[in-house]
Amino acid sequence: MRLTKTVGQYLLGPGALASLPDLLTEPVRSSQDRVVYLIDHVFRDGGLIARLPVTPADLVLYVDTTDEPTTEGIDAITAGLRDGPLPVAVIGIGGGATLDSAKAVSNLLTNGGAAADYQGWDLVPRPGVFKIGIPTLSGTGAEASRTCVMMNHARQLKLGMNSDHTVFDRLVLDPDLTATVPADQYFFTGMDTYIHCVESLAGRYRHLMADSFSRQALDLTREIFLSEDMQSAGNREKLMVASFLGGSAIGNSYVGLVHPFSAGLSMVFHIHHCLGNCLVMNVMEDFYPRETAEFHRMRDLHGIRLPRGLCRNLSDAQYRALFEATIIHTKPLINALGDDFRSILTLDTVTGIFQRI
Amino acid sequence: MRLTKTVGQYLLGPGALASLPDLLTEPVRSSQDRVVYLIDHVFRDGGLIARLPVTPADLVLYVDTTDEPTTEGIDAITAGLRDGPLPVAVIGIGGGATLDSAKAVSNLLTNGGAAADYQGWDLVPRPGVFKIGIPTLSGTGAEASRTCVMMNHARQLKLGMNSDHTVFDRLVLDPDLTATVPADQYFFTGMDTYIHCVESLAGRYRHLMADSFSRQALDLTREIFLSEDMQSAGNREKLMVASFLGGSAIGNSYVGLVHPFSAGLSMVFHIHHCLGNCLVMNVMEDFYPRETAEFHRMRDLHGIRLPRGLCRNLSDAQYRALFEATIIHTKPLINALGDDFRSILTLDTVTGIFQRI
Repeated sequence: MRLTKTVGQYLLGPGALASLPDLLTEPVRSSQDRVVYLIDHVFRDGGLIARLPVTPADLVLYVDTTDEPTTEGIDAITAGLRDGPLPVAVIGIGGGATLDSAKAVSNLLTNGGAAADYQGWDLVPRPGVFKIGIPTLSGTGAEASRTCVMMNHARQLKLGMNSDHTVFDRLVLDPDLTATVPADQYFFTGMDTYIHCVESLAGRYRHLMADSFSRQALDLTREIFLSEDMQSAGNREKLMVASFLGGSAIGNSYVGLVHPFSAGLSMVFHIHHCLGNCLVMNVMEDFYPRETAEFHRMRDLHGIRLPRGLCRNLSDAQYRALFEATIIHTKPLINALGDDFRSILTLDTVTGIFQRI
Repeated sequence: MRLTKTVGQYLLGPGALASLPDLLTEPVRSSQDRVVYLIDHVFRDGGLIARLPVTPADLVLYVDTTDEPTTEGIDAITAGLRDGPLPVAVIGIGGGATLDSAKAVSNLLTNGGAAADYQGWDLVPRPGVFKIGIPTLSGTGAEASRTCVMMNHARQLKLGMNSDHTVFDRLVLDPDLTATVPADQYFFTGMDTYIHCVESLAGRYRHLMADSFSRQALDLTREIFLSEDMQSAGNREKLMVASFLGGSAIGNSYVGLVHPFSAGLSMVFHIHHCLGNCLVMNVMEDFYPRETAEFHRMRDLHGIRLPRGLCRNLSDAQYRALFEATIIHTKPLINALGDDFRSILTLDTVTGIFQRI
């Protein structure tokens, strides 16, 4: 039993972004107070910046989200911010990678040290800088979760800074911000919610509040992705709510089989989290038969094409690397299959699954 | 669009109460620091007190919940606490009346003045004393809501201190604490969740997050009250979660027809909120036909007997008083029936409904 920290305050609705100045009146006390904006680089050339209440004291940084966040990347951003006065707020505007970057930078600014020092569970001693999350993509749940996932290339692992201090203080949930997301990305990211809720509810571990959040998030993703226009204004708002609920569930539940295999793809082939999840979910008929069939229906309904054959004809060493990078995730695998999961997930079985991807 | 404040942290599970000392390590810094326990008087003679980490510096007060909280009662409790040092935490242990009392006292201790000064919306300027809620009854949602409802006899109204500062900082959700609730009270209180979620989802006003919370809470209450043993350990935990979710929804939604009629009963006949709701829901077939039938099924399944004929053969003045105390609640009535609700809820119609109670 663990004390569950929740996001302190959120504002939901089309146009919510316009209220950002109101959300800053508490932390910003003088015109000297610095707010740091970390914005997904896809917005570099758009009109988003003009809609933000940026003052001369503030700093706007674009986060390159071509690859997932790394501990080195987070350290570099933080180093650039250590010279000036401590910011009074860090605002992340983007998808999961940007939101996670904002959470990590906020914690590092007050705690010192390097990002890798805090990868793990409850290693962050002090609250970070006041942080606001503004998702522009829905599905990862990063806006609601108590972690920020970073690749650590030195240690060859992908691990989050799991801490109550990682939770955003405030969220702006404005579905207008997801209006221009390409269909593929909208689908892949949205499916992250579907997938982690499926995994959680099929697992052995139970937490009633997490189950409730997961069930509701799952219902919403079904409504969205089994309807004709998954990107209608109504569905975009629904997906923003589903992502928040799914993210709220994560802290009190475990994922299952999809995330470990997806982490394998991510570690060995640098495939992004959400695409990796979809590639795995696509071939999960032996473990989640009903949900895999439903996933196929949703995929086909929206004409989403997944790359195929990514893991065919690899070397034994590569299959071994994928296997190792998958079965290292013991907690979710035990949640899915029990303590004896290694007797089911043999090298042969795991290789067979990757070959079907 | 309003910034939604949520409960900061919660601990859920059987036996969670034993972790209360851990939840107090932050606010309590020295042995001189005072924690105030406001406990429902039904626990006066039980073993509950022995399970609490009460120190010599602390104060334990029993709250008489025979009647619902009044502004005078809250002022009296607060006055008794003003002499000593400002408490570092206020802990409410009980049903909705006790939790609401704890929230009100916490706010008054730091803000000064009288309870009636803050009845309304967003009138509390400063955060209250750190407050922990420990429900021993499930259903009102008081543990999650941003209000604390008090009767104000001088002004002849029943109104809450609606404020972000009214939200508990922490909750202990321990279903073991509801094991000894009498069946009638368990049913009446639990039905509060069912009823306010039914009202909210049938209303004209929509908020997607509130809808999600309400739907999930409604699903849980159906599972609980349509099963044979509504008070099984599993169902008690479910109801604790449902109550929290329903309470989380309330802040972003409006109730409908049941609560205004119930408030009328409460104002004129001092009938408790949850019983009042059930008395009204019992005769709502013209407005919520499916849910009224379902309510009857649940009532009969658990052998719950409602008092009948309470409002038969009253004087015209009494019916007029009930009518006035009902239709004063314009927001929920507009939510339920539209701006034109007075053309539907005439004195005759309203009287007819009360006569059937």
